[in-house]
Amino acid sequence: MESSVVVQLFLAIGLIIAGAQLAGAGARRVGQPRVFGELLAGVILGPTLLNMLEWNVFDEETISGMTHTLEEMAELGVLFLMFAVGLEVHLRELLSVGKVAVWGGVLGAALPVVMGMPVVLAFDYNIEAAVFVGVVLAATSVSISAQTLLELGVLRTKEGVGLLATAVIDDILAILLLSVVMATMGSDTDASAGELVWIFVRMVLYLGGALAVAWFVLPRLFNWLHRQRQLASGTAAFALVAALIFGWGAEALGGVAAITGAFVAGMGLSQANERVHDQIVETVQAISYSFLVPIFFVNVGLHTDLLQIGLDMVPLAILLIVVAAISKVAGSGLGARLGGFTNRESFRLGVCMISRGEVGLIIAALGLANGLLNEELFEPVFLVILVTTVMTPPLVRWVFRERSEKEQQPALATDTTQV
Amino acid sequence: MESSVVVQLFLAIGLIIAGAQLAGAGARRVGQPRVFGELLAGVILGPTLLNMLEWNVFDEETISGMTHTLEEMAELGVLFLMFAVGLEVHLRELLSVGKVAVWGGVLGAALPVVMGMPVVLAFDYNIEAAVFVGVVLAATSVSISAQTLLELGVLRTKEGVGLLATAVIDDILAILLLSVVMATMGSDTDASAGELVWIFVRMVLYLGGALAVAWFVLPRLFNWLHRQRQLASGTAAFALVAALIFGWGAEALGGVAAITGAFVAGMGLSQANERVHDQIVETVQAISYSFLVPIFFVNVGLHTDLLQIGLDMVPLAILLIVVAAISKVAGSGLGARLGGFTNRESFRLGVCMISRGEVGLIIAALGLANGLLNEELFEPVFLVILVTTVMTPPLVRWVFRERSEKEQQPALATDTTQV
Repeated sequence: MESSVVVQLFLAIGLIIAGAQLAGAGARRVGQPRVFGELLAGVILGPTLLNMLEWNVFDEETISGMTHTLEEMAELGVLFLMFAVGLEVHLRELLSVGKVAVWGGVLGAALPVVMGMPVVLAFDYNIEAAVFVGVVLAATSVSISAQTLLELGVLRTKEGVGLLATAVIDDILAILLLSVVMATMGSDTDASAGELVWIFVRMVLYLGGALAVAWFVLPRLFNWLHRQRQLASGTAAFALVAALIFGWGAEALGGVAAITGAFVAGMGLSQANERVHDQIVETVQAISYSFLVPIFFVNVGLHTDLLQIGLDMVPLAILLIVVAAISKVAGSGLGARLGGFTNRESFRLGVCMISRGEVGLIIAALGLANGLLNEELFEPVFLVILVTTVMTPPLVRWVFRERSEKEQQPALATDTTQV
Repeated sequence: MESSVVVQLFLAIGLIIAGAQLAGAGARRVGQPRVFGELLAGVILGPTLLNMLEWNVFDEETISGMTHTLEEMAELGVLFLMFAVGLEVHLRELLSVGKVAVWGGVLGAALPVVMGMPVVLAFDYNIEAAVFVGVVLAATSVSISAQTLLELGVLRTKEGVGLLATAVIDDILAILLLSVVMATMGSDTDASAGELVWIFVRMVLYLGGALAVAWFVLPRLFNWLHRQRQLASGTAAFALVAALIFGWGAEALGGVAAITGAFVAGMGLSQANERVHDQIVETVQAISYSFLVPIFFVNVGLHTDLLQIGLDMVPLAILLIVVAAISKVAGSGLGARLGGFTNRESFRLGVCMISRGEVGLIIAALGLANGLLNEELFEPVFLVILVTTVMTPPLVRWVFRERSEKEQQPALATDTTQV
């Protein structure tokens, strides 16, 4: 069947989006998070099962060009995804549970790094690999637990709001850790002391500058844009521009991960006035969730053959899963306790933080692309992300099982449903 | 400045979207259509003026990969754009001005081909080139005139509704013409008679099958999808899948242009129930107008150096512009007259049809990509598209100048504002 390169790309993207949506819906049907289904779609369409890219509707000579485009669209998806996450950060509201969030976030990010590194080192990997796996384990996917709490009708409780705030701090720390790791352990690993200092100065300068621009300039600029007759209809398009330029600037000017820049831009724009904010969120969500993000999730599976995972990797994978769960419950739980939660509340919050979901995957995929994580080590890490994502919803239901309707308390924050 | 390939792509897309939005808003401000501004943004960012892709923020060795990705995203943009056009076709409503639309559409598409071909042949081009330029001239961009009529408050008049219906027929014919030309004059030009018959049989079979599926299956399928708890949120994503798969099928199965398939899919889904339709339109518009379509418009300019246009091409360009305008006014005008409009109404409708806009550009760009239009001939054709797009709004204002508020008649159709 002769067909041009671009229509083969159309077919591939069509299959990817359809697979992601069907698997996502199937996952929800059996009480699993949608993200898990979308990841599974990649595994099913990839070399592990159907090996879609080898079908004879795709010409062999066009595959490399196509995977290149898919790869770049996946990266655009991640950029917009992190921008969308930033847009939902309401710093002021989160301050109401500030102490829990700061302690829970810091310890919830630190403990997985501290506990994960020795495990990786014990399996004879070098220090760079160990640090990077630690950073992946530091991630938390708030969306998965938030969705479960929403279904249980307990999102607007003390634990629910605490979870949202803690996960934000955890996100920020994980991304910062990633940025530091990428800046110092990137392609030129033999940086001199002077270069290291310059890397850090540059990073701090960029982050300071970007935060200041995002916080003070972006909301005002976009509120103004929205009042201009001819420019108003382009408000959402300009928001994409902000995400793209901040993302570029993060890497090209600051030497940090592009997603950090997009996240910072989103955080700034979360303060724009409500109509502007809603218009931006709607467009970004349409582009991300219906189009680019499925490409990201499925694309990971297209490059992973779970059947090829070495038997010798299984003990490492199992150990990492155990460490991932325990370190998060212990770290975030202890932090919440220090922040003033009761033992039971702290334990619940810790359990909600277990799933690594899309944030862990973003970090792992970046590591793979930058050579900080080799393919051999990527597969157990991918399994850790899958398993922690799947185990969290039932665990959350279990720890909240005694919480009946009458026990529900009023929410601390007033508007936290948009996760 | 070292930076990875993908963040250079982020920067390029950011600049493209920003340029398109700013130029589009600027164009509207001086009473010109937005499309003209977006095309101009490409000319400004391209080799004619700023030559963006040669800036030293982009590495020389990454440019080819980047232009490849931009090219494919532009094609995705066109696909979704034609899908969006199909979604706005309300066949039943258009039947109320059926005779005007059919006569106006047929003559409005035929006359430019008939009058354009001899001009191109007179300049020593071969018959293939002449036919292809004719097909480009057969196109009409309804959005530009519709926008002008909307501003003048006369869109819901006899002429306005007649224009919308005529432009739809014209669109369908132009795309069909394009499909026939591409199927018969594509890469293997030396097709035998038997092969030609097979090409046509295959095309008719595909179009019949695709229309039947789009018309009878898609609306029911999507209404059903929208009622399923877990699938409902994916309705818009599945609509993208339909556009992509129909687009792929058009070329791979039917040998016709991919945009024809997307257009047919959109036409079918225009009958889904209102909530489903609105959800799809919103998502497709967000992805198209804020993200992919600007990439398409600007990308054309990035590959066009208007300063390099040969002096010997100027007479051809001028002649083609004159022919483009006269043939459309005469063809559509005569058709409308045959359909029952008065002389004045027919003339007004004809003038509204002059602009080639995005539809002409889509066809021209496809011809360039398929080698049916060489670069030398592309530049005068691009100028024709630019000039007819720019001259239409003032002409429309001029022919409607005597139409005062009190003269306005009630609309024939009830819902034609969403163009």
